[in-house]
Amino acid sequence: MKAEQKLQEMGLTLPEPTSGVASFIPSVQVDRLLYVSGNTGARMYEQRGRVSQDLTVEQGYEAAKFAMVAALASVKAALGDLDRVERVVKLLGFVNAPEGFTDSPQVVNGASDLLIELYGDTGKHARSAIGIAALPGNAPVEVEMILLVKE
Amino acid sequence: MKAEQKLQEMGLTLPEPTSGVASFIPSVQVDRLLYVSGNTGARMYEQRGRVSQDLTVEQGYEAAKFAMVAALASVKAALGDLDRVERVVKLLGFVNAPEGFTDSPQVVNGASDLLIELYGDTGKHARSAIGIAALPGNAPVEVEMILLVKE
Amino acid sequence: MKAEQKLQEMGLTLPEPTSGVASFIPSVQVDRLLYVSGNTGARMYEQRGRVSQDLTVEQGYEAAKFAMVAALASVKAALGDLDRVERVVKLLGFVNAPEGFTDSPQVVNGASDLLIELYGDTGKHARSAIGIAALPGNAPVEVEMILLVKE
Repeated sequence: MKAEQKLQEMGLTLPEPTSGVASFIPSVQVDRLLYVSGNTGARMYEQRGRVSQDLTVEQGYEAAKFAMVAALASVKAALGDLDRVERVVKLLGFVNAPEGFTDSPQVVNGASDLLIELYGDTGKHARSAIGIAALPGNAPVEVEMILLVKE
Repeated sequence: MKAEQKLQEMGLTLPEPTSGVASFIPSVQVDRLLYVSGNTGARMYEQRGRVSQDLTVEQGYEAAKFAMVAALASVKAALGDLDRVERVVKLLGFVNAPEGFTDSPQVVNGASDLLIELYGDTGKHARSAIGIAALPGNAPVEVEMILLVKE
Repeated sequence: MKAEQKLQEMGLTLPEPTSGVASFIPSVQVDRLLYVSGNTGARMYEQRGRVSQDLTVEQGYEAAKFAMVAALASVKAALGDLDRVERVVKLLGFVNAPEGFTDSPQVVNGASDLLIELYGDTGKHARSAIGIAALPGNAPVEVEMILLVKE
């Protein structure tokens, strides 16, 4: 089954890819590596603020899932088809969190679990998940990633 | 026109590349990818502190521009000529900012806009821009990047 | 002398590689690049909290060293032998630190110096070192890296 169909069966729809409001572009491909810009999914997930203060960890998990859906919209725009992903290589997840927050991994799992649900072993990736002071637009989560593209 | 000439016409001069005071080096090239270490441009831009508290967003934009000039000095040291850049692939921008700061993208645009001014489409890159608690020497902005080098 | 023997002579033992408690894996190799997930070394270094508040910079340096030992355990699990590293390419170091902390580089040197001690010039890498609000489990340091693997 195709990855985008799986997304739809999960009730998730790819948004329009990010337009170029800022001075960068949604992704750049070099040889077979696709570098995907940071995405917050803020157009799909309305809650703003800091996980553990303004949102629960469970809500942060949801926010991370939608951040990944936004990133996948950039992937589709670049590759034409989510099934052209040969491997998810590396994910870096940023969680909007107060000092001393310990559960960034549990939050970023919302993005990682979605990749594994869509892609199986192909979706398994290296990762770091950190808590930071401030994200664009006060979004709760942002994710960036590197993918290997099929030849 | 050559990228370094454009820099000079903008009144920007490449500094000496960072010396090895710390336990790392300014860049590493693997095949055609050049990984450039984080740069703050602190030798060229004197203001220190947190954007939105100690600096305005406009000053942060300036700081990001000089952080990129410092990064370009490392690029020149590695490649001999800024025109050997085939593509700017990925930029990661860190903004020294208080909790809840929302405008990291506007700040990091100072680095991104300089790349696009110098390189045009070649300078367009994937990016994340985040606000963090602390930067080396209390600099307002740090940028790291990945470039594709001409064969 | 082999890198792992050097580690042992320094009194450092590779731990078991991280098990898959979270939704990601310890490393992913693409062609000759090995992307290693973020590691905190928390199983080997017991101190928790923020560098300059709960730990000194010197203790942070120790924490960074153990974070790198944990990362090297993932490298050994992936490659079978630490001597299959052709080059350390890029390191990203996160320091659990309060607002305005200026000495992230001195802390992350604990990881960088270990690489250079083990590998010599092969261990010299590009790097960024930033201070952030929150790390998993309130660990003081986390490091992720990219390595070039021998053919």
